[in-house]
Amino acid sequence: MIVLGIDPGYALMGWGVVESNGSRLKLINYGCVETFAHTPMQHRLRTLYKGVQDLVHIYQPDDVAFEELFFAHNVTTALMVGAARGAAIIAATEYTENLYEYTPGQIKQAVTGDGNADKKQVQQMVRMLLGMQEIPKPDDAADAIACAITHCNTGVAKEQFRMK
Amino acid sequence: MIVLGIDPGYALMGWGVVESNGSRLKLINYGCVETFAHTPMQHRLRTLYKGVQDLVHIYQPDDVAFEELFFAHNVTTALMVGAARGAAIIAATEYTENLYEYTPGQIKQAVTGDGNADKKQVQQMVRMLLGMQEIPKPDDAADAIACAITHCNTGVAKEQFRMK
Repeated sequence: MIVLGIDPGYALMGWGVVESNGSRLKLINYGCVETFAHTPMQHRLRTLYKGVQDLVHIYQPDDVAFEELFFAHNVTTALMVGAARGAAIIAATEYTENLYEYTPGQIKQAVTGDGNADKKQVQQMVRMLLGMQEIPKPDDAADAIACAITHCNTGVAKEQFRMK
Repeated sequence: MIVLGIDPGYALMGWGVVESNGSRLKLINYGCVETFAHTPMQHRLRTLYKGVQDLVHIYQPDDVAFEELFFAHNVTTALMVGAARGAAIIAATEYTENLYEYTPGQIKQAVTGDGNADKKQVQQMVRMLLGMQEIPKPDDAADAIACAITHCNTGVAKEQFRMK
């Protein structure tokens, strides 16, 4: 099974493609779709949309796993990141109906066994699980890979994480 | 000039198409794209995206005018409405680069001459300006029509309202 993990952001949208074969995980590729400040919003959203459109066509994932967004602070930021997430969802939905969503706590739990693990622990586990020499950079890509791993390891329970 | 006005919402996305010819305004059509609770988010966003895609192809607007979103209260709502707005922007951008944005205050000012006018006053002015028998329903469609009128009447200053 090939899983595309996405950490939806407006300036940087992290992504990671992981292949699972039984309990074996293999990293296919990872990176970020980047958009630039001082660029009109319509162009930034279009870049994110086209970016995810390219990813699903290149890697042909069976499932797409999104990191769920949580914000306590800033409503303006929430509007922008919500739009970025919407762009990614529309692009992914053109390709597959299999969209799933995991909270940061669920991802930490699945990757490290501790729902309160810090970022560094998650990144170290991602590196180890995938046999990488270095921690994947930037953080947004590492988060997306962790989300894809979470989905691979969620197994038969995955239906409960289907995007509502 | 044909203007498509959009009041971006997640459950109801209001729209109105207005044609301006000098100082004459003519209502072409209006309505709402509706999405239903308990439907997966990916389907709701896709409905909004396809809805706006249909509107720009049917009415071929020269410009698209969005009502800007303001929320003081709820971050979760902001994430959803942000996604809805993102879906509409991507669909509109496929058709035209001419996207504009007006705040509720700017719309009230342009339609009634009073930036603090209430909803009822705005709706009555919309009805009068377009020679309609009744106030357009629902409110979301009336808001979208008001946004289109605002853009028609903004004239040469409209570049300052181009979506950033």
